[in-house]
Amino acid sequence: MNLKIALLAGDGIGPEVIDQAVKVSNAIAEKFNHNIEWTPALTGAAAIDAVGEPYPDETHDICQAADAVLFGAIGHPRFDNDPSAKVRPEQGLLKMRQKLGLFANVRPTFTFPSLIDKSPLKRERIEGTDLIILRELTGGVYFGDRGRKDGGDTAFDTMTYQRFEVERLARKGFEMALKRGKKLCCVDKANVLEASRLWRETVQALEKEYPEVEVTYEFVDAVAMRLIQWPKGYDVIITANLFGDILTDEASVISGSMGLMPSSSVGSEVSLYEPIHGSYPQAAGKDIANPLATVLSAAMMFEDFDLKEEAEAIRSVVNKSLAEGVVTEDLADGGKAYKTSEVGDWLATNI
Amino acid sequence: MNLKIALLAGDGIGPEVIDQAVKVSNAIAEKFNHNIEWTPALTGAAAIDAVGEPYPDETHDICQAADAVLFGAIGHPRFDNDPSAKVRPEQGLLKMRQKLGLFANVRPTFTFPSLIDKSPLKRERIEGTDLIILRELTGGVYFGDRGRKDGGDTAFDTMTYQRFEVERLARKGFEMALKRGKKLCCVDKANVLEASRLWRETVQALEKEYPEVEVTYEFVDAVAMRLIQWPKGYDVIITANLFGDILTDEASVISGSMGLMPSSSVGSEVSLYEPIHGSYPQAAGKDIANPLATVLSAAMMFEDFDLKEEAEAIRSVVNKSLAEGVVTEDLADGGKAYKTSEVGDWLATNI
Ligand SMILES: CC(C)[C@H](C(=O)O)[C@@H](O)C(=O)O
Ligand SMILES: CC(C)[C@H](C(=O)O)[C@@H](O)C(=O)O
Repeated sequence: MNLKIALLAGDGIGPEVIDQAVKVSNAIAEKFNHNIEWTPALTGAAAIDAVGEPYPDETHDICQAADAVLFGAIGHPRFDNDPSAKVRPEQGLLKMRQKLGLFANVRPTFTFPSLIDKSPLKRERIEGTDLIILRELTGGVYFGDRGRKDGGDTAFDTMTYQRFEVERLARKGFEMALKRGKKLCCVDKANVLEASRLWRETVQALEKEYPEVEVTYEFVDAVAMRLIQWPKGYDVIITANLFGDILTDEASVISGSMGLMPSSSVGSEVSLYEPIHGSYPQAAGKDIANPLATVLSAAMMFEDFDLKEEAEAIRSVVNKSLAEGVVTEDLADGGKAYKTSEVGDWLATNI
Repeated sequence: MNLKIALLAGDGIGPEVIDQAVKVSNAIAEKFNHNIEWTPALTGAAAIDAVGEPYPDETHDICQAADAVLFGAIGHPRFDNDPSAKVRPEQGLLKMRQKLGLFANVRPTFTFPSLIDKSPLKRERIEGTDLIILRELTGGVYFGDRGRKDGGDTAFDTMTYQRFEVERLARKGFEMALKRGKKLCCVDKANVLEASRLWRETVQALEKEYPEVEVTYEFVDAVAMRLIQWPKGYDVIITANLFGDILTDEASVISGSMGLMPSSSVGSEVSLYEPIHGSYPQAAGKDIANPLATVLSAAMMFEDFDLKEEAEAIRSVVNKSLAEGVVTEDLADGGKAYKTSEVGDWLATNI
């Protein structure tokens, strides 16, 4: 297969972890006889510095021309706590999601046998957790009208959803559930929000098309609790942009390490793959960041190209590295801490 | 002291748990020579059934005339999953918060030595947790404009904050922090929301008035993670209505039992005290619900009347009941399960 992949390394540890995913993907390509053409492009603070824009048009063109986008992380502390900054790296992220139409963020949550005791949660609560949160990514309060009134003393943001946005995401949720545990949970705040009532209505109307899927409706506050109390109770969760932002990060706690959790953001034309962790600026340039989340995001990419064996090969070499203790300092637990690049090399060699 | 308390038992297990808090409060009144006058009033589904309104004017008048309100729970399953229901019990709750001006919901999160192993979290992560979430309760997306457009296909909700609303809550947070660990964390989504940027601005402007308090600003998604990873890192958290709704429920997981966690909702004239758990309709009428959260809410009430010894007397008898295993079935763990009313009687007798 010939694959054209746009490579958006971004800020902080982004470039370092992306490098390892490239190494591993190239090893896969060699082993399975694929041809990957990587096209790097600027994004985030790096792009602001270079061209004054966190998601330049050129980057967008590269992404659109690609079969997939592999993404590192964006964000830089110099923009935090500065309410007056006009251009922020995060705007690039949002613009990218919107312009590429990445409407569904897919975040699997699972545990790693060799790491289960790293979780702040007790083993018996989490062992065997296998859930996916499907977060709507191009709508809701992220993209509604916002501004100030009363000379700046009143601020407002608008949470809006259209039926087709909910339906599109919900269908994806139903289809994923069909291939998995056949349970779908719609998470909202329908006892307060009109947008949530539209969500509920829309999902309810789809239920009859997927009679095999058992659908439940839960309030986001209750789910924030139950996700920790009993994550094994969930299979596929669908939820709005803002709720998904909160719940996916919360769910990442279950596995015990953010440094391991991959994600994909699905669009109608191109999809994007990225680790769920951020740009972690304190570690940037030190060759200490954990590359596994990015490597596993590449596995999700191969999976979506229907290259299941390739995806599985990545997952199994990752598990092997964990079992053999070839890990970065965040997972070293007093043992030897490998460098980011060493872990990448080891994985590529062992593919 | 003469105390006039409005008694809003509400729905589900509300009446049962309220009864126990009344018993315990009366025992306190007797022991410490106070006089409590209780005035019951209708609310929730119970009020809808009786007068077609979940927070009737008469109830409001009773609350306003009172020194404090003791509240059970509201909500009834017959209104759930029914997007068409015109009158809902929850509306009563929101109307009550707004009309009584209950702008700050105070939710302490702490652990009980004898119950610490019930938490889904590991002991070393949570032992000694002592944090308070201060949730803004009369503004934000709960009370903004909402509705439908495009023949019902588009739904919107508006998240609005005014500077004075943020300032009022933030001041309360600073003052609480001064009396405790001197740390305040403002939780928002300032990288996306304009309302959050107003929050940050407003809190930043107050910092210099409270130089002793160390202030941090964190994003709600990160906090959803850190609250579980390291709850001991927090002292006082201030946050908007919707974020507070999610985070307070999430935080309740730490203690291992929702059935134990009290709260207060502070207004400028009258304050309200309620357990954080809901109406738990499946248990209603069975005399099995855990009354301790409501009893501990009454302790918060005494504390706010500056009756510290009284509050302490309640807390210590509650701890005693836990230590001696005089508990309802949710905490019985194979041991004897006491009835709701038996626990109340035991507490009142042991005051
Ligand atoms: C950086 C921020 C705008 C972003 C979001 O809120 O979507 C991030 O938290 C994420 O989840 O990807
Ligand atoms: C019932 C609901 C409207 C309410 C809220 O969202 O405020 C509840 O979840 C709470 O936290 O008291």
